[in-house]
Amino acid sequence: MRFIISGSVPGTSTATSEIHDWLTENAATQQLDVQRVPFSAMDSWSFQTDDGRLAHDSGRFFSIEGLHVRTNFGWRRDWIQPIIVQPEIGFLGLIVKEFDGVLHLLVQAKAEPGNINAVQLSPTVQATRSNYTGVHRGSKVRFLEYFNGTRPKRTLVDVLQSEQGAWFLRKRNRNVIVEVFDDLPDHPNFRWLTLPQLRAMLHCDNVVNMDLRTVLACIPTVVGGSQADEVLASLPRGFPAQLLHSFIGGGTSVHNMNTLLSWISDVRTRRELVQRTRPLQDIERSGWIRTDNAIEHEEKKYFDVFGVTVRTTDREVNSWMQPLLSPANCGLLALLVKDIGGTFHALVQLRTEAGGVDVAELAPTVHCQPENYAGAPEEDRPSYVDYVINAPRKQIRYDGFHSEEGGRFYRSENRYMLIEVPDDFGDSDTPDHRWMTFDQITYLIGHSHYANIQLRSLVAIAAAVYTGNIA
Amino acid sequence: MRFIISGSVPGTSTATSEIHDWLTENAATQQLDVQRVPFSAMDSWSFQTDDGRLAHDSGRFFSIEGLHVRTNFGWRRDWIQPIIVQPEIGFLGLIVKEFDGVLHLLVQAKAEPGNINAVQLSPTVQATRSNYTGVHRGSKVRFLEYFNGTRPKRTLVDVLQSEQGAWFLRKRNRNVIVEVFDDLPDHPNFRWLTLPQLRAMLHCDNVVNMDLRTVLACIPTVVGGSQADEVLASLPRGFPAQLLHSFIGGGTSVHNMNTLLSWISDVRTRRELVQRTRPLQDIERSGWIRTDNAIEHEEKKYFDVFGVTVRTTDREVNSWMQPLLSPANCGLLALLVKDIGGTFHALVQLRTEAGGVDVAELAPTVHCQPENYAGAPEEDRPSYVDYVINAPRKQIRYDGFHSEEGGRFYRSENRYMLIEVPDDFGDSDTPDHRWMTFDQITYLIGHSHYANIQLRSLVAIAAAVYTGNIA
Repeated sequence: MRFIISGSVPGTSTATSEIHDWLTENAATQQLDVQRVPFSAMDSWSFQTDDGRLAHDSGRFFSIEGLHVRTNFGWRRDWIQPIIVQPEIGFLGLIVKEFDGVLHLLVQAKAEPGNINAVQLSPTVQATRSNYTGVHRGSKVRFLEYFNGTRPKRTLVDVLQSEQGAWFLRKRNRNVIVEVFDDLPDHPNFRWLTLPQLRAMLHCDNVVNMDLRTVLACIPTVVGGSQADEVLASLPRGFPAQLLHSFIGGGTSVHNMNTLLSWISDVRTRRELVQRTRPLQDIERSGWIRTDNAIEHEEKKYFDVFGVTVRTTDREVNSWMQPLLSPANCGLLALLVKDIGGTFHALVQLRTEAGGVDVAELAPTVHCQPENYAGAPEEDRPSYVDYVINAPRKQIRYDGFHSEEGGRFYRSENRYMLIEVPDDFGDSDTPDHRWMTFDQITYLIGHSHYANIQLRSLVAIAAAVYTGNIA
Repeated sequence: MRFIISGSVPGTSTATSEIHDWLTENAATQQLDVQRVPFSAMDSWSFQTDDGRLAHDSGRFFSIEGLHVRTNFGWRRDWIQPIIVQPEIGFLGLIVKEFDGVLHLLVQAKAEPGNINAVQLSPTVQATRSNYTGVHRGSKVRFLEYFNGTRPKRTLVDVLQSEQGAWFLRKRNRNVIVEVFDDLPDHPNFRWLTLPQLRAMLHCDNVVNMDLRTVLACIPTVVGGSQADEVLASLPRGFPAQLLHSFIGGGTSVHNMNTLLSWISDVRTRRELVQRTRPLQDIERSGWIRTDNAIEHEEKKYFDVFGVTVRTTDREVNSWMQPLLSPANCGLLALLVKDIGGTFHALVQLRTEAGGVDVAELAPTVHCQPENYAGAPEEDRPSYVDYVINAPRKQIRYDGFHSEEGGRFYRSENRYMLIEVPDDFGDSDTPDHRWMTFDQITYLIGHSHYANIQLRSLVAIAAAVYTGNIA
């Protein structure tokens, strides 16, 4: 409940520019120098003799392996691809604390080698197990003591969520929000923001990083009866008010939860997804080329993998080398939203991804890298992609660019869109899509592996759209 | 709601013996002749040249593969073992229908090659994808049309649940209950039973098969306010009444759901479980021996795998060959139950298994094959196992034997126990255990991969214990 109270208290009018200034300062002090290096020049990383995987000598962090995928979904049914294998579960941990009755969130300005802006807003703690157990012998992770049980806290959110299934094999992170009661020391890389201030930053491109977006998506939207009316009344009529109304479960939904869960089970049963790790050299059978400089696809589709050396002065370790994955193209992630029977519904699909934790997870209406479909038969183009690309400007309620985890992905930028569709759009479902309220989506985000990370980003964005309009 | 109404209407007094008679008749007509055969004599099954796995020539059904496991949990930390790989998700489907205002469940008397009794009660439909898509060219699966969308029905339960993680790699089945409105044809292998009749059969050893037990565990226990009082009032004071009270969430719980979900995320994050399929021959590094007759462990622990030929006259196909897994010993699955603050709580653990779908799932207080711990250091014996083995008779509320899926496991029998512990037992948690109400456990069974199949069996049994006492 206090989240939305916090959400409805606007920050001071200068806050946004102050945050930008602070990020700019941090970009200067946290400068990362990132240079590509051949695989053979990477310290501590090598292609293993048994199965060819590119791995760290410690056996920790992550590795690049071959994955054989067999599925009955989509255009391609059987292939072998490189994939990031990272079985460790890390923390994406956000500390919140009440100041003068308003919840504030402790965010970090964090540089990552793959970032589009040098630094982005990230959760208080963003650490792999290898980080926080000190495999790299660096300094300890700041504020970790509020997540590992050392210091007292109240846990508000704590759920394992999946990450990019196209690039990671069954990767998950722990999304956790804790309320603390200690006075925390100030640090130039950290700052307390209110939820509206933080959500306001989602209206800027490439400022709120993926890890923070997914944690924000896990915040429950809970408002008691009269308070809901009060907040709703404070909103101008139209899109933002209808959005909040859908988040708080104010109206009726097309499907009840039982029916939606049954649909999810049905699709997960009918679809096949057989994942087998394979020696890395087997990726060549599916058109992947390995040189000392990169692993890339012969058609220049999908992504490349290459090595970098990173130097910094402000980090647990001062320099390191690692592989990064660089997507070939910008992704398109669009959620269609429609008023059905007086309640906003979003059109979500169940999408199957090569490395998915489950056979299918809920995803945005359109979720693709359009260029990867060059050469695909017309009927295999993703549903609604042409609608989204050609949507009239007046229907577009949000249109921005955000990047994915800069610790693994090199300048991976996606276009995120919310599009309101008119009455005549039709509200029947396809076998792969269902109309759901935001209340239903956020309920499912309370449990693991229902919603993929791109849909979770759009949920965080949708909440930023209504918050931005609270008077 | 109607489930518990149905549950509270007792069957006719002769029903139980009639059910036994019907099972005996079916045991005669469905006779299976099961003979061991060397692997080299198995039609359509062979060890594959690339990775040695034992697989069906169609590439379907299931295979026996090598699995490399690395974990930081338990006595053994790193090993390679044989495991059943079956990526297909099958149906465990139960049809229910109202007759004279009482819900009846359509159960099947089904023979399986590994069954301890020739036939056991099973769900209406129990079919792998290879079965129901006709890979084996047999006759079609009876009543499947109510599960695949062909005939109208109302879905009451529909959730993917995991199966034995010690023997299967990430195996799941779809647990589904549908209410139908058609008149269904009679068939000698099928019979309509009420929920109390069916639960009564759980008081007999090896009669209700694993597949039916897990579906029964997914039945929500929902009773409205005054009705709850009425049902509770009809129960004699003591264990059964307290059990039902816990199932319907009548009292207060030691932990709230938020705290429990956080504990689950925490354990899943701290524990490691790295699973890698490996060539089958690699199992020899961990003491497994492969001959033409069996795959077995040199210490005679864990399980054997061998081939059988099965002949029958009453099945989709008349004869077939397949591998079966035969556990070395009987398992012990015990749930401790305690009155804490006026509400019954069960002590569940988060258990990690070699082939688990997730790092850890909720399991009974004690879940082990005690003989596998021969040679283990004293401190690595499972918690509470000595308490359970030595529990005074007056505390034992249920003690019975049930077997696991006879289509994959050969005479796999486990001892299932409910034990009430006294006030002086102590109600503090261990890092791996939590006290939960049955209401909390059944809420989590509504979503995938929280409770393992052995705990689900014990939940079905606990419901049978209170149902058996409803006047």
